[in-house]
Amino acid sequence: MHGDPLRKGRLGTGRPPALAEFLSSMEADRWIAEADILVDIAHLLMLRRQGIVGEEQATAVLRALVRMAEDGVPETAFDDRYEDIHAGIEAHLIAIAGADAGGRLHMGRSRNDEVATCLRIRLRQEMLLHMEAVTSLRAVLLRIAGDHTGSVMPGFTHLQHAQPTTLAHHLLGYEQAFTRDFERLRDAFARIDRCPLGAAAFASTGYPIDRAYAAGLLGFPALVENTMDAVSARDFALETLSAWAILMTTASRLCEELILWSSAFVDFVRLDDAYCSTSSIMPQKKNPDTAEILRAKTGGISGALVAALTCVKGLPMSYNRDLQDLTPHLWRAADTVGRCLPLLSGMLDTATFMTERMHEEAGRSNSTATDLADVLVRDFGLPFRTAHGIVGRAVRMGSLTLATLDAAAREMAGISLVGLGVTDAVVKRALDVTFSVTSRNQPGGPAPEATDAFISGHEEQLAADSRWVKETRGRIDTALSDLVHTAQDVVQ
Amino acid sequence: MHGDPLRKGRLGTGRPPALAEFLSSMEADRWIAEADILVDIAHLLMLRRQGIVGEEQATAVLRALVRMAEDGVPETAFDDRYEDIHAGIEAHLIAIAGADAGGRLHMGRSRNDEVATCLRIRLRQEMLLHMEAVTSLRAVLLRIAGDHTGSVMPGFTHLQHAQPTTLAHHLLGYEQAFTRDFERLRDAFARIDRCPLGAAAFASTGYPIDRAYAAGLLGFPALVENTMDAVSARDFALETLSAWAILMTTASRLCEELILWSSAFVDFVRLDDAYCSTSSIMPQKKNPDTAEILRAKTGGISGALVAALTCVKGLPMSYNRDLQDLTPHLWRAADTVGRCLPLLSGMLDTATFMTERMHEEAGRSNSTATDLADVLVRDFGLPFRTAHGIVGRAVRMGSLTLATLDAAAREMAGISLVGLGVTDAVVKRALDVTFSVTSRNQPGGPAPEATDAFISGHEEQLAADSRWVKETRGRIDTALSDLVHTAQDVVQ
Amino acid sequence: MHGDPLRKGRLGTGRPPALAEFLSSMEADRWIAEADILVDIAHLLMLRRQGIVGEEQATAVLRALVRMAEDGVPETAFDDRYEDIHAGIEAHLIAIAGADAGGRLHMGRSRNDEVATCLRIRLRQEMLLHMEAVTSLRAVLLRIAGDHTGSVMPGFTHLQHAQPTTLAHHLLGYEQAFTRDFERLRDAFARIDRCPLGAAAFASTGYPIDRAYAAGLLGFPALVENTMDAVSARDFALETLSAWAILMTTASRLCEELILWSSAFVDFVRLDDAYCSTSSIMPQKKNPDTAEILRAKTGGISGALVAALTCVKGLPMSYNRDLQDLTPHLWRAADTVGRCLPLLSGMLDTATFMTERMHEEAGRSNSTATDLADVLVRDFGLPFRTAHGIVGRAVRMGSLTLATLDAAAREMAGISLVGLGVTDAVVKRALDVTFSVTSRNQPGGPAPEATDAFISGHEEQLAADSRWVKETRGRIDTALSDLVHTAQDVVQ
Amino acid sequence: MHGDPLRKGRLGTGRPPALAEFLSSMEADRWIAEADILVDIAHLLMLRRQGIVGEEQATAVLRALVRMAEDGVPETAFDDRYEDIHAGIEAHLIAIAGADAGGRLHMGRSRNDEVATCLRIRLRQEMLLHMEAVTSLRAVLLRIAGDHTGSVMPGFTHLQHAQPTTLAHHLLGYEQAFTRDFERLRDAFARIDRCPLGAAAFASTGYPIDRAYAAGLLGFPALVENTMDAVSARDFALETLSAWAILMTTASRLCEELILWSSAFVDFVRLDDAYCSTSSIMPQKKNPDTAEILRAKTGGISGALVAALTCVKGLPMSYNRDLQDLTPHLWRAADTVGRCLPLLSGMLDTATFMTERMHEEAGRSNSTATDLADVLVRDFGLPFRTAHGIVGRAVRMGSLTLATLDAAAREMAGISLVGLGVTDAVVKRALDVTFSVTSRNQPGGPAPEATDAFISGHEEQLAADSRWVKETRGRIDTALSDLVHTAQDVVQ
Repeated sequence: MHGDPLRKGRLGTGRPPALAEFLSSMEADRWIAEADILVDIAHLLMLRRQGIVGEEQATAVLRALVRMAEDGVPETAFDDRYEDIHAGIEAHLIAIAGADAGGRLHMGRSRNDEVATCLRIRLRQEMLLHMEAVTSLRAVLLRIAGDHTGSVMPGFTHLQHAQPTTLAHHLLGYEQAFTRDFERLRDAFARIDRCPLGAAAFASTGYPIDRAYAAGLLGFPALVENTMDAVSARDFALETLSAWAILMTTASRLCEELILWSSAFVDFVRLDDAYCSTSSIMPQKKNPDTAEILRAKTGGISGALVAALTCVKGLPMSYNRDLQDLTPHLWRAADTVGRCLPLLSGMLDTATFMTERMHEEAGRSNSTATDLADVLVRDFGLPFRTAHGIVGRAVRMGSLTLATLDAAAREMAGISLVGLGVTDAVVKRALDVTFSVTSRNQPGGPAPEATDAFISGHEEQLAADSRWVKETRGRIDTALSDLVHTAQDVVQ
Repeated sequence: MHGDPLRKGRLGTGRPPALAEFLSSMEADRWIAEADILVDIAHLLMLRRQGIVGEEQATAVLRALVRMAEDGVPETAFDDRYEDIHAGIEAHLIAIAGADAGGRLHMGRSRNDEVATCLRIRLRQEMLLHMEAVTSLRAVLLRIAGDHTGSVMPGFTHLQHAQPTTLAHHLLGYEQAFTRDFERLRDAFARIDRCPLGAAAFASTGYPIDRAYAAGLLGFPALVENTMDAVSARDFALETLSAWAILMTTASRLCEELILWSSAFVDFVRLDDAYCSTSSIMPQKKNPDTAEILRAKTGGISGALVAALTCVKGLPMSYNRDLQDLTPHLWRAADTVGRCLPLLSGMLDTATFMTERMHEEAGRSNSTATDLADVLVRDFGLPFRTAHGIVGRAVRMGSLTLATLDAAAREMAGISLVGLGVTDAVVKRALDVTFSVTSRNQPGGPAPEATDAFISGHEEQLAADSRWVKETRGRIDTALSDLVHTAQDVVQ
Repeated sequence: MHGDPLRKGRLGTGRPPALAEFLSSMEADRWIAEADILVDIAHLLMLRRQGIVGEEQATAVLRALVRMAEDGVPETAFDDRYEDIHAGIEAHLIAIAGADAGGRLHMGRSRNDEVATCLRIRLRQEMLLHMEAVTSLRAVLLRIAGDHTGSVMPGFTHLQHAQPTTLAHHLLGYEQAFTRDFERLRDAFARIDRCPLGAAAFASTGYPIDRAYAAGLLGFPALVENTMDAVSARDFALETLSAWAILMTTASRLCEELILWSSAFVDFVRLDDAYCSTSSIMPQKKNPDTAEILRAKTGGISGALVAALTCVKGLPMSYNRDLQDLTPHLWRAADTVGRCLPLLSGMLDTATFMTERMHEEAGRSNSTATDLADVLVRDFGLPFRTAHGIVGRAVRMGSLTLATLDAAAREMAGISLVGLGVTDAVVKRALDVTFSVTSRNQPGGPAPEATDAFISGHEEQLAADSRWVKETRGRIDTALSDLVHTAQDVVQ
Repeated sequence: MHGDPLRKGRLGTGRPPALAEFLSSMEADRWIAEADILVDIAHLLMLRRQGIVGEEQATAVLRALVRMAEDGVPETAFDDRYEDIHAGIEAHLIAIAGADAGGRLHMGRSRNDEVATCLRIRLRQEMLLHMEAVTSLRAVLLRIAGDHTGSVMPGFTHLQHAQPTTLAHHLLGYEQAFTRDFERLRDAFARIDRCPLGAAAFASTGYPIDRAYAAGLLGFPALVENTMDAVSARDFALETLSAWAILMTTASRLCEELILWSSAFVDFVRLDDAYCSTSSIMPQKKNPDTAEILRAKTGGISGALVAALTCVKGLPMSYNRDLQDLTPHLWRAADTVGRCLPLLSGMLDTATFMTERMHEEAGRSNSTATDLADVLVRDFGLPFRTAHGIVGRAVRMGSLTLATLDAAAREMAGISLVGLGVTDAVVKRALDVTFSVTSRNQPGGPAPEATDAFISGHEEQLAADSRWVKETRGRIDTALSDLVHTAQDVVQ
């Protein structure tokens, strides 16, 4: 370790190792080391352009930075006796380019704006990965749904068989939910993608810096203008954590269903062996472990959100060291979400849906009773509530047959269904599962024509969303690669 | 209480009162009773237009609905022996229009899509109020900042005096943060403002309904298309709760500062008596109670978010009764946020800022040491880290004078500042607070020209945001008022 | 409303109604109004005994207090223009007994210690109710388990059929968990049951009060001694909320199972109609709504805990008004838990367990494969992992017969089970469900002798716990009733 | 990596690395590897004693286990292609002792009870460390308080100067709070310290195991009897996390005060340089970073609690893989608490309290106004509320002098204080800070005699608590060391 460049003036240098480790953000800073080099380069190119740092000194430092951009940050910079990666990198630069040149890099900025900029750069990258993963997941759902617009299954409310639907309809519900999750990530991204650099400690700087130029070099379309807010705001992290927590809540529901559907009772899906585990003592077991752990991970993201909200609550302006401790929760959550989404896609993509079992269950538990009531209303003129009451009573009597229905009608409403012209054939047709499903062809409904239309519409939306992610990534990658090239040109 | 129209068919009717009360959502349903009438009217106009309900029956029910729209929902409908307000209103309609007509209102829909629609209608309204309140708060902050672009005060990091800034700069940091909070509310609003009606229980319906027409009547620009998602999604509530939790976290920071600033130690602000309380035994006390309670309310919103996230986690499709228990948390939070924002605006608007005290503190604790180090770098060519180290050491020696600085320079870097031409006048000027503030005129910085520019820009943004809220409210109010007029025309 | 006795000296009196309502804790104070009268009486009897308040004045105020203890706090005292119930009651006392006498009641104490004492008195009462409810729930579980020590059912891990067990064994797992929940409530109770009265605003008082005497009058066995902690500590509330959150998490698991078991797939339980609802459009439905709402309530308690933790985080000493906003979360949670527990008991007590269905499922999915592997180890000397591997492979082949087992053994381990003497009869016996259950007679196991022993032990524990609750309630009730009698004697 | 012993029978073996890593608990399992060896030894000694495993095979496996107990678990066992450390260790044992012997270790148990036992063993150890750290912290607080029973300082409510107190009184408030935190840890410990081993997968086992004997070997005084609960309960973790969250909330309050007291405004404390940091650009700064990060860590613990509560909510019986994902939150929190407590002690122990500054502030802001009002009541017979009103009005007039008091008395109550005999000397004495403090000598009050008595009492309590921790640790350490010795004797 090189000497810590920060402490030697103001404070004594003795510090117990446990304390140094406690105060250091080094472990979490591995997430932002690369971004930090880019921020250093952008800031230095700006200082040089503005004439704040001389050509020679700028070149000396840029040379060391370009090497790190090319070869990676050296392991010595990660020594956790440094307070953070910024101190580690600065010590490295001073060792290579001399204290005079190396120190000048920190003119017109502070670690407070530096770290805020690094967080946003890395988080942008994570969010683009997540948005890609959500589009892949949506594609898988649309693909499976497209294969199963005719696969009849029971729909549930309160976990009770309710009305027949199709597997397509069921999965498209999730696709629609994940589309909103995508929208939320994109909205959060817009608020991440703003540049706090140049805010310095919080008070801006007397050096004639050019904030917009540096921001542009780093691919940011806008500034976080007010400098006090620029260093102390973490709402971009809170919003991102919220969007993840909601996304994972959606995922937890899907996983809950895959677990239920994998049970011997239901047997609607067989997950690929790779996603399952067996027992150490029960040799027959095949457990849906991946779905269970995914479901559990939801809690971890909610917990990270609570950690971050609690951390920020009641902090006065401007920067407080508390904010350092928010960051590990952010990266932990980013990592979790980044792992979970592709596994969820993969688990669905490789699953076998047991369409015969589904069909077998579709008509069970009087699931078409609503259709029967509807027929009594539509074709025989009964008031809705009366028809509903008669069918419900017949269910209570044990079955839905003309005999029980007629008895129920007499008891509940003093009328005879037979007298109204209801026949066995009428009852039978009304209770038919396929009739039930195909008749519900409203927008968003389960009938094949409705799900087909939905799929077409959402395939278009998905294509547009994928394009947006690709273009956004392209814009940022180009800016960052241009930045390094510019620096390489300077030092050659 | 009229008989519960729902239970008489399928289930026995005995139920202990404690259980009925437990299952009933009636208390929370007061929030949506008005919206429910509008949903009933829109649905019925659609059923009539589609020929699903005959003219005569439609008119009979519409008449009762119009009366409730005009005079309010009768108190009998809120009896908590009904499971919910939907059952209460239906019982009322049946009592007035007869079972035949009254029951038909529920053709082609269910309470599941009905309640989801009601929630979104009422939440739209709350969110518009909140957005208005945030624009008012921003206006207050911009107004006070405009009055104080020249009011010098200390800026803080780690609650330590850091560098001088201005009250304008400080408050504009909050204005910028609340602008992002506004953006988040607006983004959440867009996902609330979609219509689930016609999804029925989850499975859509066999009746030839027109979902888009009914949605339009209720002022919704789009559908929640997939019907399974339409009834089971509550991410709109989770997102809203998140946006509120983040907003209140921002507010908690401002309140923390008002509390600190009200202390005898700081005395930067005197809050209006109305916002304060005294002690029951200490007669001299004037306590910033409003700010304290506002700060505490942040926890309630985070808690409501956790309640809602926990509630939804792991729920299978489609509707589960758990969702009913999420709603009270939503309304409780809406109410809290709706109360807090105007009080925060009022507390700021009536506060007296003690600018002399602020100025007195602005230069304390060597707050311009950074400026001095910058001068050593800029005008005397010292490396940045060296200058930083020298000034830090001089502070440790007890004061920032030419003598201590020179001694520190000899010790730290083996150089003489006097030898480099540094004089008492140079040091004095570099440490001047006003020089320090006016020199930091970067975008977003504290110099008056920078804060003036910021205020101009944000006044424009604020005007645009206020316009958007007004237009959105206008669009919705017009739709809902047209809806009632249409119904009134039918029944006359 | 009488004039607010607190504000007239130090602060101006104008205050907008919205602000008065915001600052007032009156709504939540309904929970502590009765306790407040008792605290007033105890404090006054102590002041009188110590000669701090003269006989005549004490009697005048006591007379008014005794009337409120007998007839209830008058509705005028709840006017939310008072900051709290303490102010409301004081205003009432002054109106009746005169300013001179009424005001003296507040000598040697403050609202800070007063409210903390009231909270603890009421919370004690709630906790005793909850502990009684938990003992009732345990009694129901023990009763049902006692009826079903021979009711074989499948046990699950990962929601997969795992090994056969009994309904008794399953329910006793919950009984054991609720016993720990009881222990936690009792431990929290011990920390609630300490008296902060006499701490005054936080700094104790110069009046010669007798804290221990007043505490004893109120049934507290000990003081919260340090007076600064006495008024600012709310860890008793945080601990109680934690204990409730954990208890409700246990309950949520049981409710999840009742919901699963109510599904048509599983059909292990039929809940009484009273605890279920039907659908507004699907007449055949019988939904386990009570269990769903109970499950959802878990989130509300976790949310209340987060609200309270967030509220207290980072508050400096001593009393801050933030603490007022913690209390409504406490009462809301107390109310929820108090409602949920008896309903959970009632739902279980009235449920019908479908033992034939359970038995039918008990042997499904090769649930006795572990027993078979154990037999291969025990009786035929195979290594455990080898036996486990063979049985697992045979399951993969589709069935557990001598033929598949032998084939699996050849493939996995190159041995012949037939060669080792394994016969069809051996396999059949090893796979028998009843054999499987009765052989697992370890402490805590499913065999009838094990569950019988468990039930005996826990019935004793339950009796002891019930006795403790009864005695504790008796001790407190006696103290409080003695307190009122003493006051009545004084004023007669 | 040795082959995974678990999968080869039932499931195919291909699995993408990302998935294997996702499912593996290996990272968190480093916390329990040592405990796992002890559990293996105890289980094997029991199996041998019961004759379930033969002498020779037992010895072969024990030999390998003893080596790991002596030399540590080999790094190969931590390969994250194993699902967990249990699989890693089993693979190692099989490699050394052969499949036959190695496999037999898993007779009569499963990973479900194994991991639950390991968690409890390691958590016991962490909790003992935490309890020791809390006793050290209490000792530091008692020591500092003992030095400062005469150090007068202002006490605060609502962050306003309220009444004078002493530094001893202030710190003893925290000591008392941390004593309750200790009690909660001890109560949670009692529920951790029960043994689930022998529950097997959840259903107990048909082998004639002796659960009590194995539990005793591992130093557990009792069983978690019901085997279904034994493997699926995690309330011991939830309770521990709650106790930590509450403890850290207490710590966050103390840290908030150290931060406030370190500000230039207050300057009541100077923290040792080691616990502070400076700024990268503001050379004069000395920031209380350790206190800030400690304060922030509170959020992380609340977040871990929420993660765990969310994870467990709604899980059906018995073991679900979700539970694996709870554990990392537990260890992360254990680590945080274990680091924070000694640093908090150290920060306090090395801090310099600025008693002169405190004394200077003690009488500010009319902090003895309450005493003055009390004197008017006690010595001049004014009603309490009247005296309170008069003093409050005089404060509003600007000062507490005989003149303003007399004017206030005329205005508020139409009386003359001078007329009643109040003199300048009376007012002056009543306002004296030392008089104020020493007169408040109630139990728990600030007067030196009261704080001295408190310190004596709590030193005794602390000694008893320390003894309990030491004895408990001794009991467990002895058991575990006896366990290893027994195994060593067998294999020699």
